[in-house]
Amino acid sequence: MIEDKDFITSRDVPGPTKENIRAILLYKSTVTNEDSVVDIGCGSGGITIEFAQRAKNVISIDKNPEAIKITGKNLEKFNLKDKVDLIENDAVSALKKLDKIDIAIVGGSSNDLEEILEEIDKKLNPKGRILITSILLDTKIEAINALKKLGYKPKIVEVNISNGRILDRGVMMFSENPIGIISSKKDNND
Amino acid sequence: MIEDKDFITSRDVPGPTKENIRAILLYKSTVTNEDSVVDIGCGSGGITIEFAQRAKNVISIDKNPEAIKITGKNLEKFNLKDKVDLIENDAVSALKKLDKIDIAIVGGSSNDLEEILEEIDKKLNPKGRILITSILLDTKIEAINALKKLGYKPKIVEVNISNGRILDRGVMMFSENPIGIISSKKDNND
Amino acid sequence: MIEDKDFITSRDVPGPTKENIRAILLYKSTVTNEDSVVDIGCGSGGITIEFAQRAKNVISIDKNPEAIKITGKNLEKFNLKDKVDLIENDAVSALKKLDKIDIAIVGGSSNDLEEILEEIDKKLNPKGRILITSILLDTKIEAINALKKLGYKPKIVEVNISNGRILDRGVMMFSENPIGIISSKKDNND
Amino acid sequence: MIEDKDFITSRDVPGPTKENIRAILLYKSTVTNEDSVVDIGCGSGGITIEFAQRAKNVISIDKNPEAIKITGKNLEKFNLKDKVDLIENDAVSALKKLDKIDIAIVGGSSNDLEEILEEIDKKLNPKGRILITSILLDTKIEAINALKKLGYKPKIVEVNISNGRILDRGVMMFSENPIGIISSKKDNND
Repeated sequence: MIEDKDFITSRDVPGPTKENIRAILLYKSTVTNEDSVVDIGCGSGGITIEFAQRAKNVISIDKNPEAIKITGKNLEKFNLKDKVDLIENDAVSALKKLDKIDIAIVGGSSNDLEEILEEIDKKLNPKGRILITSILLDTKIEAINALKKLGYKPKIVEVNISNGRILDRGVMMFSENPIGIISSKKDNND
Repeated sequence: MIEDKDFITSRDVPGPTKENIRAILLYKSTVTNEDSVVDIGCGSGGITIEFAQRAKNVISIDKNPEAIKITGKNLEKFNLKDKVDLIENDAVSALKKLDKIDIAIVGGSSNDLEEILEEIDKKLNPKGRILITSILLDTKIEAINALKKLGYKPKIVEVNISNGRILDRGVMMFSENPIGIISSKKDNND
Repeated sequence: MIEDKDFITSRDVPGPTKENIRAILLYKSTVTNEDSVVDIGCGSGGITIEFAQRAKNVISIDKNPEAIKITGKNLEKFNLKDKVDLIENDAVSALKKLDKIDIAIVGGSSNDLEEILEEIDKKLNPKGRILITSILLDTKIEAINALKKLGYKPKIVEVNISNGRILDRGVMMFSENPIGIISSKKDNND
Repeated sequence: MIEDKDFITSRDVPGPTKENIRAILLYKSTVTNEDSVVDIGCGSGGITIEFAQRAKNVISIDKNPEAIKITGKNLEKFNLKDKVDLIENDAVSALKKLDKIDIAIVGGSSNDLEEILEEIDKKLNPKGRILITSILLDTKIEAINALKKLGYKPKIVEVNISNGRILDRGVMMFSENPIGIISSKKDNND
């Protein structure tokens, strides 16, 4: 278990994805040490680190060089450099060069979500899973519609988390921003 | 309708109570221009201003001199000085000196909530209403238990609000911290 | 103040809009007894009743005859029949026949939201306000985009409410489904 | 990954604990196949099943014979009978007879939470973890205070989940009731 504060961060890079969201993504992914994982829009590397600890390997993509740098620093901190390939590129170009994928996590909220999902679908193994986190209202709808168009049966859950700070005079709750998690499996009958 | 950003604020004073919470308090209070209102722990004066615009008069109490000062500035800004008495004192001492109350709003989360509610109960008219906002887990329970002990049938609602920021790439939601609102009427059969 | 349980309801008609949502709509609308209000998709009449108690008059539209019937029963119960015109029709057709509007509340989630908003815009007074409640992710985005296209600067707030049930062994919280409220003013500089 | 609908349920037994709450509990517990887990107030067995799939063994306690029966049925369904001891007894009596515990999950909201936590503390290994789920406001405070008294540094997170139903006309969100998760480690410096 990694706490949010344990990650190295940078002001110029979003993330890391918060603890309880990482927990839910890990659970829904059913990741094992036989899975090849792609982390698209890896940001600070929160998702990359979690999956690197559990998967066979992770390929982490971000077009922001600062994101690649911070993710690299976190990999070093958590001793996981051997498990991860860092690719500084836009998602679609990077995905075109990849082989088979078992789990794809899409964290970025770029404009080309539909094209990204099409590319993932081409590489996704028959038992593969796609997980998308979204902080934009628009992305939730786009992700659902794009997945439906590709033949998936997506699910969506909205997560609102508040963390308590235990003060002398009592417990005060502080909210995180709401996150949507869209999930789907290649094999809908699974 | 007043937006949060319309109030004068100070770094040393909590509040103002957020827009949608003010909306709910106004609604539950059923305030009219015949009501005498007490605002206990008036902070920046958000509640005071709203009720001063609708009630017969408001008595605003805070032991923090800076809170009294900021509330005064907001009264000036909104042209409501004639409707409000500002009292710099602890709540229980100030309440002891008051006459009849129609609506009491308790915004502070001080340790003497039970004593404050006892004092309010003594002054509350037969059709009077008590509303408590709480940011502490503990205060919610304390308020409910104290009101039950005084013969009220309190209700509680927890409010989680997210505000959208409409960006070029989409709508991003930002959460406010959760607020509990405990409400009760002197006349439970009302 | 009206509690949810005070409204007459029907299994075949959605609503009434929940108490705290009604509170927020009333507040954002800044309704006075000089305002003409249109309630589009009036459902069980929760919004109609609230505005009928405060506005000059309300025109309530629903294409579902059962909704018109239940709203009528609630108007009778709350003694507000003189303040409200009930129109059983689709929203666009009904709006075309209307005069000037001060406040429009759109509660339905029909497919022709964009056309409804265009029609409202034509009739809306210079100081008019539009409020849309949404239970569908898609409607939130549609409403925002349609309002932007018409020159408005919409705001959106997402409201998550939990109500406490005070049991012997403690206070248990029960959640209402999340509601989005999109609001805008004709005069953006207001 | 198990979906809520995959569990056998009974009208007379609460639970199972919902999917995303199970995900967060699993993550915070850092359970491995070397851990002995106690599930107190096992209800329908949702937590028991999840931990039985990952831990060395699980001891599941409930004073409700119907809960023990349903948990048993779920163990059979998921082929996990060999990993779990079912104990029909009140929590404190059952805990007194136990040996060392690595992970304790307290799901019930009984009146003797403080005594339960004292008993758990006596049996908890130096690297042990306690996780409490709470649907009552009161239990959250009680759990935090009892853990502080025993020398722990508890954390609390409140989880509000909405699940989307993807309808033809759009995506509608349905809320689960809020759940508090209180967590702590025997070794606070860990």
